[in-house]
Amino acid sequence: MNAVPDHILTENAELDPQVTEPLPGSRKIHVAGSRPDIQVPMREIAQQASVSRGVPLANRPIYVYDTSGPYTDTAQRVDIRQGLAPLRAAWIAERQDTVALDRPTSDWTRRREQDAGLSGLRFARKRPALRARSGCNVTQMHYARQGIVTPEMEFIAIRENLKLAAWRETGPQAGRVHPGSPLGARLPAEITPEFVREEVARGRAIIPSNINHPESEPMIIGRNFLVKINANIGNSAVSSSIAEEIEKMVWSTRWGGDTVMDLSTGKNIHETREWIIRNSPVPIGTVPIYQALEKVDGKAEELTWEIYRDTLIEQAEQGVDYFTIHAGVRLPYIPLTARRVTGIVSRGGSILAKWCLAHHKENFLYTHFEEICDIMRQYDVAFSLGDGLRPGSIADANDEAQFAELETLGELTQIAWRHDVQVMIEGPGHVPMHMIKENMDRQLEVCHEAPFYTLGPLTTDIAPGYDHITSAIGAAMIGWYGTAMLCYVTPKEHLGLPDKNDVRDGIIAYKIAAHAADLAKGHPAAQQRDNALSKARFEFRWEDQFNLGLDPARAREYHDETMPKEGHKLAHFCSMCGPHFCSMKITQDVRDYAEATGIADADAALAAGMEEKAAEFKEAGGELYRAE
Amino acid sequence: MNAVPDHILTENAELDPQVTEPLPGSRKIHVAGSRPDIQVPMREIAQQASVSRGVPLANRPIYVYDTSGPYTDTAQRVDIRQGLAPLRAAWIAERQDTVALDRPTSDWTRRREQDAGLSGLRFARKRPALRARSGCNVTQMHYARQGIVTPEMEFIAIRENLKLAAWRETGPQAGRVHPGSPLGARLPAEITPEFVREEVARGRAIIPSNINHPESEPMIIGRNFLVKINANIGNSAVSSSIAEEIEKMVWSTRWGGDTVMDLSTGKNIHETREWIIRNSPVPIGTVPIYQALEKVDGKAEELTWEIYRDTLIEQAEQGVDYFTIHAGVRLPYIPLTARRVTGIVSRGGSILAKWCLAHHKENFLYTHFEEICDIMRQYDVAFSLGDGLRPGSIADANDEAQFAELETLGELTQIAWRHDVQVMIEGPGHVPMHMIKENMDRQLEVCHEAPFYTLGPLTTDIAPGYDHITSAIGAAMIGWYGTAMLCYVTPKEHLGLPDKNDVRDGIIAYKIAAHAADLAKGHPAAQQRDNALSKARFEFRWEDQFNLGLDPARAREYHDETMPKEGHKLAHFCSMCGPHFCSMKITQDVRDYAEATGIADADAALAAGMEEKAAEFKEAGGELYRAE
Repeated sequence: MNAVPDHILTENAELDPQVTEPLPGSRKIHVAGSRPDIQVPMREIAQQASVSRGVPLANRPIYVYDTSGPYTDTAQRVDIRQGLAPLRAAWIAERQDTVALDRPTSDWTRRREQDAGLSGLRFARKRPALRARSGCNVTQMHYARQGIVTPEMEFIAIRENLKLAAWRETGPQAGRVHPGSPLGARLPAEITPEFVREEVARGRAIIPSNINHPESEPMIIGRNFLVKINANIGNSAVSSSIAEEIEKMVWSTRWGGDTVMDLSTGKNIHETREWIIRNSPVPIGTVPIYQALEKVDGKAEELTWEIYRDTLIEQAEQGVDYFTIHAGVRLPYIPLTARRVTGIVSRGGSILAKWCLAHHKENFLYTHFEEICDIMRQYDVAFSLGDGLRPGSIADANDEAQFAELETLGELTQIAWRHDVQVMIEGPGHVPMHMIKENMDRQLEVCHEAPFYTLGPLTTDIAPGYDHITSAIGAAMIGWYGTAMLCYVTPKEHLGLPDKNDVRDGIIAYKIAAHAADLAKGHPAAQQRDNALSKARFEFRWEDQFNLGLDPARAREYHDETMPKEGHKLAHFCSMCGPHFCSMKITQDVRDYAEATGIADADAALAAGMEEKAAEFKEAGGELYRAE
Repeated sequence: MNAVPDHILTENAELDPQVTEPLPGSRKIHVAGSRPDIQVPMREIAQQASVSRGVPLANRPIYVYDTSGPYTDTAQRVDIRQGLAPLRAAWIAERQDTVALDRPTSDWTRRREQDAGLSGLRFARKRPALRARSGCNVTQMHYARQGIVTPEMEFIAIRENLKLAAWRETGPQAGRVHPGSPLGARLPAEITPEFVREEVARGRAIIPSNINHPESEPMIIGRNFLVKINANIGNSAVSSSIAEEIEKMVWSTRWGGDTVMDLSTGKNIHETREWIIRNSPVPIGTVPIYQALEKVDGKAEELTWEIYRDTLIEQAEQGVDYFTIHAGVRLPYIPLTARRVTGIVSRGGSILAKWCLAHHKENFLYTHFEEICDIMRQYDVAFSLGDGLRPGSIADANDEAQFAELETLGELTQIAWRHDVQVMIEGPGHVPMHMIKENMDRQLEVCHEAPFYTLGPLTTDIAPGYDHITSAIGAAMIGWYGTAMLCYVTPKEHLGLPDKNDVRDGIIAYKIAAHAADLAKGHPAAQQRDNALSKARFEFRWEDQFNLGLDPARAREYHDETMPKEGHKLAHFCSMCGPHFCSMKITQDVRDYAEATGIADADAALAAGMEEKAAEFKEAGGELYRAE
């Protein structure tokens, strides 16, 4: 029954160093806020000096958004049996709007805690669960609407700004960066805590931050901020263990996962989730209907509101930060899917469709929506309103069923907002390129600008094994159009459960999509890293080129396949062209010449006439690359 | 000196079966044209039957565009020492506008042929080179403008139409497919030979088809046809052999490369190219300046028009189908690059820039452009006007240097067209998403709708090791906007020379981009394959799902990692969700129910009231998956 290798959970609670060691050339720094306990983590990437005519010129370090939490901090040592430090605990406590519970509210939780057979599996809980004081609302949206700037909001403002020394000094690159966002909303030159507050109050951004997950480092999801990505992990009945899932979670944050969804459907969901949350520096999302279904032995028609409600509370008291809730799968919409090529492809959507048909009743998540809101506001769990009727193929994109559900999600958004509960909206799925923008435009309109959170979309169905790519195309586009968070797709999509390599491949593909979207939206700090990497590339600073990239290890490995020696890292060429054909090298000759002769200014150059310089240049030759 | 494993070129002239065996579930068919020697190859993918309530219903085979030539035809046996059959030879001969040459025109070729030391390397030439009769013009554009529909054009019409039994029968999927192309040009319901002729006459499409490469299967590059992709191969001084390059060429066509560029810069370029062309079923492109530079020992300033001219003729008489010619890198534009982050990144562009500066003279390709046209028309070599000043980083995108060169390429296009010489235009490079469309719009305008052929573009610089993905995003978008051919980028871009796996990864990423673009453009036949694959996926026809995909082997391998047994191929679930949570399975229950109870029509369903059916459904249960 216990599928977890004991040594990981008990004897040796340290993770594989490959999962936790700092990325090469990087170190963790913390930027302090207005109070000493606001310490915003960033990753500093050091750079080598440029050498111009033998004179070294220092290059400033580059600062990047860091999702990896304490794991990559050499000044800290994480013991997964202890969990991470509760960095938000004091902020939550000083608001004085919560109570610590004597015992868990959920029946299920109590039963699991009393089951002696689970002791080997269980995370040793140290803190009682919190809940809002009677009559209180503990959501970040509630505070924002009261005009309160929380420490979480300030943390986020610093984090999103990247407090980039470099960019502060050079300013936004006028004329280089896209002058206006295509979004119709503003991208401020500087993200202030007040701006964060306004966006959250307006419902245009959410801060997933369950009061029972104080270990998480505050982050924001909204289209006027950096585009975020989510990584799914989770075991299934067929495969994987708790220890593997923890490692996947840490692994996901290492490569840049901004949130992690635990989609476990196998045994011991409750215990697996506890381990993950206690050790997660990023918000955790779940789909509670999966666990509810386990509780009725997989028989959708036996689901009840009471079982579901207990599951919500069980998970809220563990610290889940957002719930996917398929409340928009309404009974009248289900027949609209019958003629589709791929019917209903959302697991949650299909479970609820089955329940609705079996009972010929309206979806109980829809009919109990206000009660759900009442639970959410007591823990600050955000809604991720699920798109249970999303298209599962190009043929089904943008159809009546999909858009009918979207309308309902918009209606539910307004209900949630009346309770000051944070909401994001899940989106498709499989959509050809020319139909993507309609999804974004409709979502903004119908859902009143609540943040959009899309799965891809996949832009074609014909590439099983490569759906991280079919979907990165759609994800980049919809991110540019205004989607706030992109749910990753791994190469194993449609084929099997992703392993660690698939998670890495999926995350990097999505970091690319998100960053490409940030560039296209004109985020003021985004292009820094591109520029630094390109400059390093041009100057043959190979180590910097690797280290500034999203995956330094793979870049180095690819380079070393043909040029393995350390001396090659100093070479002013690579195996693509060899030493004599390197355009970068030749260009450097051209540039040196242009600079030396003052022809960088085209007008001046043409006026001066360059003829007399020609012979000189020819004579000087231009073998700039260093022999090994 | 001879880096080629002898056994491959002499004893055992058969390629690795992994490179040539038919893709699983596929066989080669030929569709006949109006004359018996027009035999258009297609790949037929067989499908298993669907089973509905125990009754098998046959699924038609799917026909896809097939670039792999005779290699995957089990009815043929290719001996690479003999080369492929010259399928166009009779068509060329019957036009009676060519002469067979007694001896090669190029001095260089004659010298190589007389060098006894090269005998072990040399492909045994069997045919004399052809050239246009004095005063004749042998380009497809010339024929098109005379109103002649060549066999090549008819071949292409059949090939582009895919003569899809399935699509002919169902017709274009009204209401599903994008109603209008965003291109402003028409996409006909059926591609006719006359339509092909018109597009070629207009200069909006090219048929790369050197009279000395009769082995190639005619194909077209133009935005009113399927989007094509190019794969680059070629050795460098640092790595790889002739045999490897032939295998890479065959490998490229296997996965869907529509053309192959031989970018060799190492030793024995002449002999390598001969082997490749004689064995290539797809058009071959080159960058002649690379070889010209080798002839002057890598010293750009020693290049002369005479050496370059002889290189053009040398390659034209071998059968190269298109030449990248950087005639737009004009002297006054070079200083515009001096302040760039990455200067000049095109190899050809930087070589010419160096020459221009060394001599303070205008680019000799620009000043001799009419003479080049005169060579091109004698062999029907198409121009691929090189973008020597393309941006090499996000920071340099869409700058003055790039667009100045583009203007010149437009001017040169009109000169080439006056000679009835076919032209396409090369495009960037590194471009953030929001600046991509401007590239396409300007190119259409400035270059008079000559086909655009872009490298990517890469939408961010921060992912070395993953540039097949950063660029597939840009490629899909620019393909949708109207680019006719996409030059692939492999994961090794910027890091090293691609190996076989990288070539496959690069091609599949680009097949995805091209197909996503075809879907978005509303190509009438494109969605067939998506629909078939999605239907197979929905019905758990695993084998069909693998075989209909772009890379059946990898899809199968990924599936088998968690569900390896043959019995699993019949399972109605996969390891992602396990048997109890499969949304596809649950949906099938819903659909069966909806069909059985006649509620597929939403109105009827709601009118009928479904309450009485509910108990019935619940009773019937729904365990449809077959136990293993």
